[in-house]
Amino acid sequence: MSARIITISRQFGTGGHTIGQKVAEKLGLPFYDSELVTKIAEKSGFDASFIKENAERTSSVSGFFYDMGIHGSSYMPMSLYDQLYITQHNIIRELAEKESCVIVGRCADYILEDRNDTLNVFIYADNDYRAKYILETYGDNGKKIEKRIKDKDNTRASYYRHYTNREWGDPLNYQLCLNSGYIGAEKCVDIIVQVAQGK
Amino acid sequence: MSARIITISRQFGTGGHTIGQKVAEKLGLPFYDSELVTKIAEKSGFDASFIKENAERTSSVSGFFYDMGIHGSSYMPMSLYDQLYITQHNIIRELAEKESCVIVGRCADYILEDRNDTLNVFIYADNDYRAKYILETYGDNGKKIEKRIKDKDNTRASYYRHYTNREWGDPLNYQLCLNSGYIGAEKCVDIIVQVAQGK
Repeated sequence: MSARIITISRQFGTGGHTIGQKVAEKLGLPFYDSELVTKIAEKSGFDASFIKENAERTSSVSGFFYDMGIHGSSYMPMSLYDQLYITQHNIIRELAEKESCVIVGRCADYILEDRNDTLNVFIYADNDYRAKYILETYGDNGKKIEKRIKDKDNTRASYYRHYTNREWGDPLNYQLCLNSGYIGAEKCVDIIVQVAQGK
Repeated sequence: MSARIITISRQFGTGGHTIGQKVAEKLGLPFYDSELVTKIAEKSGFDASFIKENAERTSSVSGFFYDMGIHGSSYMPMSLYDQLYITQHNIIRELAEKESCVIVGRCADYILEDRNDTLNVFIYADNDYRAKYILETYGDNGKKIEKRIKDKDNTRASYYRHYTNREWGDPLNYQLCLNSGYIGAEKCVDIIVQVAQGK
């Protein structure tokens, strides 16, 4: 049996997007990263640029989103971020139901955790490697590179914690964690394909 | 270039010892796990059974061991655990200097972190897999299996935290983290060998 759905969680500046894309190419599967934005825009009516900016951000509403189920009877205004998360959640569930695919980010590992046909991967790297990668790929935006890395890590970790009550990057949430700076992107792709095909 | 030293950190009941042993066999390298006990016994004069029992335990001395360097002038009695750690630390440093090898546990990833020829691997698995593995491999010892797993995790995490001031199982301490229950022991061995040879 092969893993039907591969989810890729990735630190910023580790090449996780490209690794996911190449895994999808090698396995002949549809690939969803920013492609999800279009789907979310269609479904939610939100503007694509708003989604792109906020798809991995949380609201400032205190308490976890999942608490809403528990306290369903009490009034809690739903933020735009939460509406965005719900739309995204439903789209990811529908995609997984419909087809085999590769999905990057957006808590997909958590959203699909009740399925037994997923392979969840975490891509990370040392900060030196990430700094070099970010400057080469996205250029210098005037902000200190250490701060760019830290801000993105904090945003993604908060988003993941907020909606899943789990820790982003805890190996127990994934079946495979790869340091792309050490292993190399190409070899990461190979390993993910091997493990996906071995299931 | 190949990685000269492979360190394997492993949760109890994940087959990490056997995986390390097979990696060593495939690469034709010496393998050190309980083999270190004999070396430590020779060097320290401690009894082998005492070492086996306590080699991954910490003393109750408050404050981290590494503080001793900072507060070198103040008196702090050194516990047997710390003496054991120092002996172990020196043996691991000497081994790495002398030969290419595979080392299981004992903070080897941290002890050798200044080297650039190591591959650090973390082997983990879901608790259901571990429970089955432990009962099949070590048998039932009358203690609840959940407690056996929790106790071992706590001991290893405390030991690692005490001597390294880092979190055991944090992917950033390793270059490769593999869920052996999902991936399978044989495939884990393959992946480690591929990554080690790819460097």
